[in-house]
Amino acid sequence: MQIACAQVAPVVGDAEGNRRLAREALRAAIEAGARIVVLPELVTSGYVFESAEEARGLAISVEELADWAEEAARAEAVIVGGFAELGEDGAVYNSAAVFGPDGLLAVYRKTHLWDREKLSFEPGAEAPPVLETPFGRIGVAVCYDLYFPELTRGLALAGADLIALPANLPLFPRPEGERPVEIALAQATAHVNKVWVAVCDRAGPERGVEWTGASCIVDPDGWLAAGPVDGYGEGILHADCDLALAREKAWGERNDVRKDLRPELYASPRPASDPSRIASSSERGASRSPASSAP
Amino acid sequence: MQIACAQVAPVVGDAEGNRRLAREALRAAIEAGARIVVLPELVTSGYVFESAEEARGLAISVEELADWAEEAARAEAVIVGGFAELGEDGAVYNSAAVFGPDGLLAVYRKTHLWDREKLSFEPGAEAPPVLETPFGRIGVAVCYDLYFPELTRGLALAGADLIALPANLPLFPRPEGERPVEIALAQATAHVNKVWVAVCDRAGPERGVEWTGASCIVDPDGWLAAGPVDGYGEGILHADCDLALAREKAWGERNDVRKDLRPELYASPRPASDPSRIASSSERGASRSPASSAP
Repeated sequence: MQIACAQVAPVVGDAEGNRRLAREALRAAIEAGARIVVLPELVTSGYVFESAEEARGLAISVEELADWAEEAARAEAVIVGGFAELGEDGAVYNSAAVFGPDGLLAVYRKTHLWDREKLSFEPGAEAPPVLETPFGRIGVAVCYDLYFPELTRGLALAGADLIALPANLPLFPRPEGERPVEIALAQATAHVNKVWVAVCDRAGPERGVEWTGASCIVDPDGWLAAGPVDGYGEGILHADCDLALAREKAWGERNDVRKDLRPELYASPRPASDPSRIASSSERGASRSPASSAP
Repeated sequence: MQIACAQVAPVVGDAEGNRRLAREALRAAIEAGARIVVLPELVTSGYVFESAEEARGLAISVEELADWAEEAARAEAVIVGGFAELGEDGAVYNSAAVFGPDGLLAVYRKTHLWDREKLSFEPGAEAPPVLETPFGRIGVAVCYDLYFPELTRGLALAGADLIALPANLPLFPRPEGERPVEIALAQATAHVNKVWVAVCDRAGPERGVEWTGASCIVDPDGWLAAGPVDGYGEGILHADCDLALAREKAWGERNDVRKDLRPELYASPRPASDPSRIASSSERGASRSPASSAP
């Protein structure tokens, strides 16, 4: 079973051109053998909006993704891609849609918004879903969601074999010879959860913003099954993936991703640190017992 | 302010030799300028025990780490290192001790035990501490704890500027040209929390076990400030570190590690996945609303 990530270069504002671009990428990926295809975040609209009004003008309902539904049905494939969604509630969301052979499986509205997205989009109110598909269970998240291991752990614990993330990763400087740090994040997410991870980033500069082009497909051991794209530009990544590998959560006979969790020891994430929980050296100097002021 | 990780090669059972080894490494690291020195996990005892009895026989009380206390006092340094601890309760723990210029700051008993450690050690009952030191706030964890981003997030939210991890990372095969995946984990931990991370692994084969030698010091952007050691063997890593950088939790004007958290959306980690939380495609096919069965 082959997964593809289509690292294409949409153009902000060119809805018709982006529609063609996405359809062509889907067809190319499927023709090359993919049964699960991931498209970038906001592939329908582009990303660098001049205003919330521009984003709203480019937002569509999920029904307008008929192309994706048709490709998924025709090829008996699963398609995950990002779009600017005009919700039935009138709000605009940065969403990912998932289509299977039988139609729409889910829309996930991005819950962690990055930078100016906060000016154009409402954050989603629901945690992301895990969807049963003919090829395995797919959890969905979008771009900056990857920075919240709480969320990806939740997807893994809910049974995801693959976490698919449409993304638009703005380019930050990196030391010479280093891969984008987002690839390390994808590796860590896969490894600590023993899940497949497929990040589909975008290419093509847009209104002065360059993109990282960090698409990658990572196996449950944390190794790159595909990616990055040569030169971090446009390209479609393909990897043969046995999603069932992600059902094995044991490391040897004595360790297991789920059973080794110690939830009673993990703090609920809180918006700010509480200084009362930090031990000072004067309080601790005389103590020989294990630390008790814990996070 | 310089941090060092002393990737030394202790010998299982040679308590006196390991004592000298640790003291020499501390002195060398401090002489080269380090003010925070991290030693490996179980540096006093070695790791590959033949039996729980052997581990118990090598376990010591924290008072027996007088060498470490003396070095920390003499050099006005902070020392973090792992030891087999005989607790005042009679149990044997895989612990990390932290000494500052004024004495013992804390003992943390490893809460996530790896493989045969479960045969020799009691798991710790307390979450790890964050300690105020003259150089900044240090959170402590040990080796496999790094696989639990819930725990490292907790340390960061409790105010850690640096997460210091004594480790003994058994060597697993990796694709040619790839760094150990544990380095990606350290990078991801640093990046998503905007904290410094210092992992001190060990070297030297022991009873047939080879070690990864994946010591590294990672800055709050997720980049390697030092490491890995050339050839992944014995060596002391040094990096100049401004721990105050970890107090800046904002990414630009609209994002922040703490404020962007959506704890209401994160599932409590649970020991096993609940199949009832997985949506089937037949249930979802007709739905156009955002996914509601969430992890």
